[in-house]
Amino acid sequence: MSGSRRGRRPGAPDTRAAILVAARSRFAEHGYAGTTIRAVATDAGVDAALVHHYFGTKDDLFLAALALPVDPRALLVPAVTGGGPEGAAERLLTTFLGVWDDPELQPALLTIVRGLMDPAAARLVSEGFLPVVLGPVGQALGIDRPEHRMPLVASQVFGLILLRYLLEVEPLASMPAEQLVATYAPTIQRYLTGPLP
Amino acid sequence: MSGSRRGRRPGAPDTRAAILVAARSRFAEHGYAGTTIRAVATDAGVDAALVHHYFGTKDDLFLAALALPVDPRALLVPAVTGGGPEGAAERLLTTFLGVWDDPELQPALLTIVRGLMDPAAARLVSEGFLPVVLGPVGQALGIDRPEHRMPLVASQVFGLILLRYLLEVEPLASMPAEQLVATYAPTIQRYLTGPLP
Repeated sequence: MSGSRRGRRPGAPDTRAAILVAARSRFAEHGYAGTTIRAVATDAGVDAALVHHYFGTKDDLFLAALALPVDPRALLVPAVTGGGPEGAAERLLTTFLGVWDDPELQPALLTIVRGLMDPAAARLVSEGFLPVVLGPVGQALGIDRPEHRMPLVASQVFGLILLRYLLEVEPLASMPAEQLVATYAPTIQRYLTGPLP
Repeated sequence: MSGSRRGRRPGAPDTRAAILVAARSRFAEHGYAGTTIRAVATDAGVDAALVHHYFGTKDDLFLAALALPVDPRALLVPAVTGGGPEGAAERLLTTFLGVWDDPELQPALLTIVRGLMDPAAARLVSEGFLPVVLGPVGQALGIDRPEHRMPLVASQVFGLILLRYLLEVEPLASMPAEQLVATYAPTIQRYLTGPLP
């Protein structure tokens, strides 16, 4: 194994690709919880340490297997951390819409969201994607009961994505991002920090 | 044409089926706006008056073509009308969750929602389904700017459906309906009647 830092050198392309293929197949067949780095390594014919070296943790490998155009954690965690819980909804929505409104990123994001409707993918999202992404964001916010509150946030944000980008329902499809932020921030802020039943 | 009232006698099964096949194909190919009763009648080899007789308006035909297990208008309009705008969110959510939590109806509803993710279906939803359903509900509520407010309601309700029923994300998947109503009613009520930017 070389001494290069993770992410600097992508590693041998064939080995990386083989690990990703094995990871996708494992995650799809056994779900997020049922997949181990060790099993992926065995499937790919490499050592587990090499998987760690190239991809990091199981969460990192999972996000790499999804081939997202951006790492949602790297994007959302700093956005919500700077400033604490107050105003977090506004920062979260602004960051989120900035990514989705980016014409370079939007096609890949749309493809991924469409794929989520497949029943097999649903389990990966509920067991894998949401905890992997929402967990660190909830932690960074320092809110109480993040495991209860973050899914509420996701339910509004996913619905907005669905209507604005996939179904292109007006007036949401053409609404300026600032107006969307002002419209949805009170909802998201209540889910993050308000009283809930 | 017989003298029976619409909906009483289903009509000759073959003719009805031919009209539905023609309607589905027309709506899929030309969208909601680009489809006329006349064109559907021509495709089915029947008179336009017969299509009206069997199915009613274009909106009725559209909903019949979707083969929903319930007519969402017949369900939602009375629920929100009785009592005016105050408390409308609670009534709307209670009615809505009652249908979705019904084990007889849920499988068909899930199939329909999964189908919506197809890009061709997206146009039918944004041009057809949402206006056909949300229009009468907004009217029944007597709210201002229903064409602006009802899509906000839809964005939260669709997101909840997605997480609770399709992705089965906890705690939403197992949450009692009453707790969901109490959690989401303030959001929906603000979208219906609150101040918006």
